[in-house]
Amino acid sequence: MRPKVVILGAGFGGLTAARALDSIADVTLVDRHNFQTFLPLLYQVSTAGLAADHVAYPIRGALRKTKVKFRMGSPISVDHKNKSVKLDSSEVLDFDYLIVALGSATNDFGIKGVAEHSLGMKSVGEALNIRSEIMRRFEDLCRFEDDTKFSIAVVGGGPTGVEMAGAIAELKRGPLNSDNTQAAKNISVYLIEAGSRLLPSLSEKLSARTKKDLEKLGVTVLTQAAVAEVKPRQILFSDGRSIPAEVTIWAAGVKGEPAMKALALPQDGVRIAVDKSLQVSNYPYVFAIGDIAGATGKDGKYLPMVAPVAMQQARFVAKQIARLVKNEPLKEFSYIDKGSMATIGRHKAVVEVKGLRLTGTIAWYAWLWLHLFYLLGGRNKIGTMADWTWNYLTFDRGNRHIMDIS
Amino acid sequence: MRPKVVILGAGFGGLTAARALDSIADVTLVDRHNFQTFLPLLYQVSTAGLAADHVAYPIRGALRKTKVKFRMGSPISVDHKNKSVKLDSSEVLDFDYLIVALGSATNDFGIKGVAEHSLGMKSVGEALNIRSEIMRRFEDLCRFEDDTKFSIAVVGGGPTGVEMAGAIAELKRGPLNSDNTQAAKNISVYLIEAGSRLLPSLSEKLSARTKKDLEKLGVTVLTQAAVAEVKPRQILFSDGRSIPAEVTIWAAGVKGEPAMKALALPQDGVRIAVDKSLQVSNYPYVFAIGDIAGATGKDGKYLPMVAPVAMQQARFVAKQIARLVKNEPLKEFSYIDKGSMATIGRHKAVVEVKGLRLTGTIAWYAWLWLHLFYLLGGRNKIGTMADWTWNYLTFDRGNRHIMDIS
Repeated sequence: MRPKVVILGAGFGGLTAARALDSIADVTLVDRHNFQTFLPLLYQVSTAGLAADHVAYPIRGALRKTKVKFRMGSPISVDHKNKSVKLDSSEVLDFDYLIVALGSATNDFGIKGVAEHSLGMKSVGEALNIRSEIMRRFEDLCRFEDDTKFSIAVVGGGPTGVEMAGAIAELKRGPLNSDNTQAAKNISVYLIEAGSRLLPSLSEKLSARTKKDLEKLGVTVLTQAAVAEVKPRQILFSDGRSIPAEVTIWAAGVKGEPAMKALALPQDGVRIAVDKSLQVSNYPYVFAIGDIAGATGKDGKYLPMVAPVAMQQARFVAKQIARLVKNEPLKEFSYIDKGSMATIGRHKAVVEVKGLRLTGTIAWYAWLWLHLFYLLGGRNKIGTMADWTWNYLTFDRGNRHIMDIS
Repeated sequence: MRPKVVILGAGFGGLTAARALDSIADVTLVDRHNFQTFLPLLYQVSTAGLAADHVAYPIRGALRKTKVKFRMGSPISVDHKNKSVKLDSSEVLDFDYLIVALGSATNDFGIKGVAEHSLGMKSVGEALNIRSEIMRRFEDLCRFEDDTKFSIAVVGGGPTGVEMAGAIAELKRGPLNSDNTQAAKNISVYLIEAGSRLLPSLSEKLSARTKKDLEKLGVTVLTQAAVAEVKPRQILFSDGRSIPAEVTIWAAGVKGEPAMKALALPQDGVRIAVDKSLQVSNYPYVFAIGDIAGATGKDGKYLPMVAPVAMQQARFVAKQIARLVKNEPLKEFSYIDKGSMATIGRHKAVVEVKGLRLTGTIAWYAWLWLHLFYLLGGRNKIGTMADWTWNYLTFDRGNRHIMDIS
């Protein structure tokens, strides 16, 4: 008998799980959007390098060759007695197995002013808002025609923060500087990291290289700078320092999607507690995968909130459900770390794969091809390649349009 | 001495005028957006055929090779005594000559319910809202899984309405029908025209062909159907008939941009009154061009609100200002009509140029190349060509993402 599986969230984890389960289960996939967002490239939407539509892919399009059902909506509650989940559309979906893959949201760590005065970057809407905010401030500077300064601060020295800071610096140095105005010269870009170095998941050597590359692009990198408060035009640090920041972009951390509270599953406020089998503790018919799942690695620490973890877990959980159907014993998940990478700017990137370290042009090309490869859909691959080629050849960024998504 | 020229509006007219005047005047171009919108292709953004960023072009990018200044903002008032215009940013711009090129807005002709219950399509935001509305209703139908019907009505049988209705029909027949759901079968598409035939600016033969082509695509075409009221889910006609319409798209007419009221220039509520010289009546230092200008043709009727009129007027006004600077007599504008065209669907279009009439595949290719040619910027040309090629080869429409622009 084919079990009924409901999957909450159509990100890298949810969509991979849906496709993997299609042959053995009646799957219903739920997401609040009708498209999947390619989060690793959102920063390029923010910095005018990519069209917003290129980092989104219609979920129904991705499911064409399957029998998977799709429902647009958000889960409101889980009825564990009747094994069903209620959506905000009032629809009730019955399941034999539930997979929670709701992803993550910006984590402000309770720091004052982050929610009010900084911009997150977890959705196409947020990415476009960052673009609009930067371009609007730039238009203000152009109007002033004086030496008014304008600072953009990116908080968080992980891959997201590094890539965002580098791309903003390139936007400033290139396209904005080519406009017939002096305004670009008055823009400062900061990258702020609470720890002692950028990209802490990579080797110290690559961290140092990343800092050097960013500084070459004109980014002021501050390490050991713990944010105490974000104000409308200023960031205060816990050691008493401060910097001006008309625009603060918060890339300092993420936590499990807030919707998980509605599901009333065991969690620590940041992730849902799971066993080694990826079953939610005490709820053997519920699995959690990806950013929202509190799975730990061999070191006992949470696995990183990255796409490869979610996709490996998705395929693993599909097999676990197949085992449950066949009454076979479950296995324990272990993550195969394929390495980490970040792009900094034109011909500048860092890659670390199983001890192999790449920097500069070769790392940059590796980053480009890997992201193109994982981008969903031929149309997005072609469109992104066209935008990238254009940006590369013209040193321009064409997608500067101020469009505010509600 | 170089005169100071302020141009309000950076559409086809304003931008053309700015470039044409750059060599002889100190030009400041004003627009409420930081991008120009390619209005003729907005309907493809609405029907998931094109990315929103592809029909927009950064104004500063278009001005790179000029000395033209750009200001983002809207005019609040004109001080005729001091010859200056005040923007909503509080900036005051002095001018010797003012060119009003603010374009047009949706005209509801005072019909009840149009403003509340129909969607306009005069901006990228409005185009994306139509896309979102159609796709959201489609998701509702998918959820119902029954034979609930859903009607989309396009009001207005001019080129905009014809192109929109044809594209919605193709979206329904192709991509939505390929999803693994039966929902697309329950969508109806109406095209409503108050007059006796579609595309009244073309010959009767082409009107008949257009109607036949649309009906082949499954569009129900209603002529001599004057809208009396638009309700949330229904359209009432003045003869007592009615049709269901969950989504009503208003393409029935446009009028001068509402901002023209703030300028306190002579106007009839729809257009600004201009002389044959395109000077605003009684204000010889103010010119009006494009949709907002009440210039008439040889037949005494207003010229059509289309891009070629605006661009011819822009180049003409640039020369008029040159004549004024040199104390030469002004000339009278006359419009050279290069013809009219509309696309209906794949291999279906109608073209009429000086008595030459084309239909079918050849007209369709003519339409494609002409629109690509006039699209601003190489990146947009490449991106649009890529999207079109993809749509053509796969019969799909990839830009189905629900993104609401505020």
